[in-house]
Amino acid sequence: MENHQEIREKLSNWLQTQRCKGTHLLQKLVQAQSTQGNEADAQKIIIDTLTKMKLEIDVWEPDGKELKAHPYFASSKDNFQGSPNVVGVLKGKKNGRSIILNGHIDVVPEGDLEQWEDDPYSGKVRDGKMFGRGVTDMKGGNVSLILAIQAIQAMGIQLKGDVIFESVIEEESGGTGTLASIVRGYRADAAIIPEPTNMKIFPKQQGSMWFRILVKGRSAHGGTRYQGISAIEKGVLVVNHILALEKDRNSRITDPLYEGIPIPIPINIGKIEGGQWPSSVCDLVKIEGRMGVSPDETMEDAQKDMEQWLQKLGETDTWFAHFPPKLEWFGARWHPGSIPITNQLMTALAKNYQLILKEKPLIEASPWGTDGGLLTKLAETPSIVFGPGVTEKAHFPNEYIEINKVFEAAEIIALTIIDWCEIDQ
Amino acid sequence: MENHQEIREKLSNWLQTQRCKGTHLLQKLVQAQSTQGNEADAQKIIIDTLTKMKLEIDVWEPDGKELKAHPYFASSKDNFQGSPNVVGVLKGKKNGRSIILNGHIDVVPEGDLEQWEDDPYSGKVRDGKMFGRGVTDMKGGNVSLILAIQAIQAMGIQLKGDVIFESVIEEESGGTGTLASIVRGYRADAAIIPEPTNMKIFPKQQGSMWFRILVKGRSAHGGTRYQGISAIEKGVLVVNHILALEKDRNSRITDPLYEGIPIPIPINIGKIEGGQWPSSVCDLVKIEGRMGVSPDETMEDAQKDMEQWLQKLGETDTWFAHFPPKLEWFGARWHPGSIPITNQLMTALAKNYQLILKEKPLIEASPWGTDGGLLTKLAETPSIVFGPGVTEKAHFPNEYIEINKVFEAAEIIALTIIDWCEIDQ
Repeated sequence: MENHQEIREKLSNWLQTQRCKGTHLLQKLVQAQSTQGNEADAQKIIIDTLTKMKLEIDVWEPDGKELKAHPYFASSKDNFQGSPNVVGVLKGKKNGRSIILNGHIDVVPEGDLEQWEDDPYSGKVRDGKMFGRGVTDMKGGNVSLILAIQAIQAMGIQLKGDVIFESVIEEESGGTGTLASIVRGYRADAAIIPEPTNMKIFPKQQGSMWFRILVKGRSAHGGTRYQGISAIEKGVLVVNHILALEKDRNSRITDPLYEGIPIPIPINIGKIEGGQWPSSVCDLVKIEGRMGVSPDETMEDAQKDMEQWLQKLGETDTWFAHFPPKLEWFGARWHPGSIPITNQLMTALAKNYQLILKEKPLIEASPWGTDGGLLTKLAETPSIVFGPGVTEKAHFPNEYIEINKVFEAAEIIALTIIDWCEIDQ
Repeated sequence: MENHQEIREKLSNWLQTQRCKGTHLLQKLVQAQSTQGNEADAQKIIIDTLTKMKLEIDVWEPDGKELKAHPYFASSKDNFQGSPNVVGVLKGKKNGRSIILNGHIDVVPEGDLEQWEDDPYSGKVRDGKMFGRGVTDMKGGNVSLILAIQAIQAMGIQLKGDVIFESVIEEESGGTGTLASIVRGYRADAAIIPEPTNMKIFPKQQGSMWFRILVKGRSAHGGTRYQGISAIEKGVLVVNHILALEKDRNSRITDPLYEGIPIPIPINIGKIEGGQWPSSVCDLVKIEGRMGVSPDETMEDAQKDMEQWLQKLGETDTWFAHFPPKLEWFGARWHPGSIPITNQLMTALAKNYQLILKEKPLIEASPWGTDGGLLTKLAETPSIVFGPGVTEKAHFPNEYIEINKVFEAAEIIALTIIDWCEIDQ
């Protein structure tokens, strides 16, 4: 498990020659606007790239009907027509350790357009940064993976173990793409997922899941609004109550890997919607959000925590006592995952990080769920999250990535693959 | 100005014979589901009824393009195709005092269906009540008007002044129907509008107008939500700030006509909407509502009040200092209106109320704006609001009206018309 200095230098030099090509590939991927349901164009670019690399390619649209019955299925939709998964395999020569390199191709919506300086899908390059929705979360990471495999190929290296590159759909809405890959049989001895970690290494990742809270009111004419009960005013109480739950849950986190993270397991209220008419008292508010699940708790425990917390509302508010907020768990779900820091892929990744960047890597627990939970738990494929994207810019207006980092991550990942899968001499 | 006892008795008896027919007419109107843009079916029923009564009928679709230029125009739409206004005139013999009887045919949306015991447009009758969206606000009042005119006709009475019955669209969204009637030339010496007042008489009515507040946030991944600014959390602050403004404004109301009304000029927040994705920090919240305007203040003063109040948010919150909430006045607007209690139509209405119901009428200021503001101010037609509907049930699930009241109001209004327009002997 030692890549040779000669290989390292050659590999580094070769990656230097790929600056234009790699940057261009990333730009095309960003411009392909692969929000949920619109992933086909971006996947086409991936397929073309993997074809040129002569990998064994597998393209399929996940079968929603079949997956729906799976206990780990968690999506708001069950028809994935026009949204293919893509897998490309670089076959190993012998029975070496295999690795999955997993990246999602879907991106979240761009949000309020006014807050973007450029078109959200411009892929513009300025001062060494590329801008656009999805560039950091996580197309930059995907390009790092492709560059890493290309670099190994360019070195003329034959590995013992398989390298399985996965470009999956639906990560942002619950992981159906990765679930489909697992159901199709893709497993490995370990996995790397280059989500935007600011080049930190995450051996632990929190889980998360989506919730919906329905808050009732009673309608009335706005001019006699005192005769109704405003679901918006009641909704405001629920929002504040959820914020208090977040505070309570986070005060219980003691894992040192969360040190220095302001809110280790956030509860994000992402959507609110209520009312049909400005002059009527609103009678129903819908709140949707995402609840963080600590690596040390189960999804079920976290759900119970929120259920019990919401029940408290009825203790001080007679309206809530009669009309308790209705809690639903819907759509996306990411299982928490955790592998020991002593895992050999961790050791290799940390070593190569230090070799290339001349400093110790930061090792933390992730602030979000990723498909790594599914891989670690369901596919028994221990997963590490490590990638070049800017954590702060994920899901953010003017999302960007530092292009340099894409190549640094590619170099570190390539060397780690060589260590893990081993060269077939 | 004295209707004779003989006429009163005959009129009362005749109305008794119309119980079935009048109830059936109201039921058909409720079943016609005349939400905004869907008024044509209900208006067809009105046209058929007025045709049988041999009134001079005028049917037209308001010209949005023309009306848009009018300073009193306040609607969220400007195309009224398929939404006709209907006017029917009972011509007076000589130059007596004329009266407008104005009722709107549009109804607000039904809201959360789960809170309705029956289909919202069933028109079901139970225990002397009829149920359905719009039955109280204000189709019951409209039927009172029609019954009143029919009763006068049945008595064989010829009046000196014109009786102008108006079935208008768009009252619930800013009064374009009544505005169009005024622009078409319909004015009179006074007007009665049978909005649901619980049989109270409103010589004063508050104005109201719709507002929209846009609250900015900054998006981020929900897992690192501390790197963004939640527009939902900021929106919660804005909602509470508006509630405080309502309190402040109402503490300044001293008009005795508002005595006993919990919130004389309410600010109703009717809609809230923000966020696109449960796992993203919400970057924009839209709040829509309706601001009550006291009969003693101008629309402009009320607007200024809210504008200045919102600016205060920036004094204690640096986010708001940099990104102040954006206030817009849009869509509907109802001007406040006020006529002296000594107005002769007031005197006549109060007298006939007491004659029929053997008790003094309650005289108050209205909790909402009506088309009476437009009639009083723009058309110089002093307007009184008085109707059989249940104030508490307007815009409410399981909206109903007591059928008895529809006939009582018809009787009182018929006698008042006779007093006002005078019998041509």
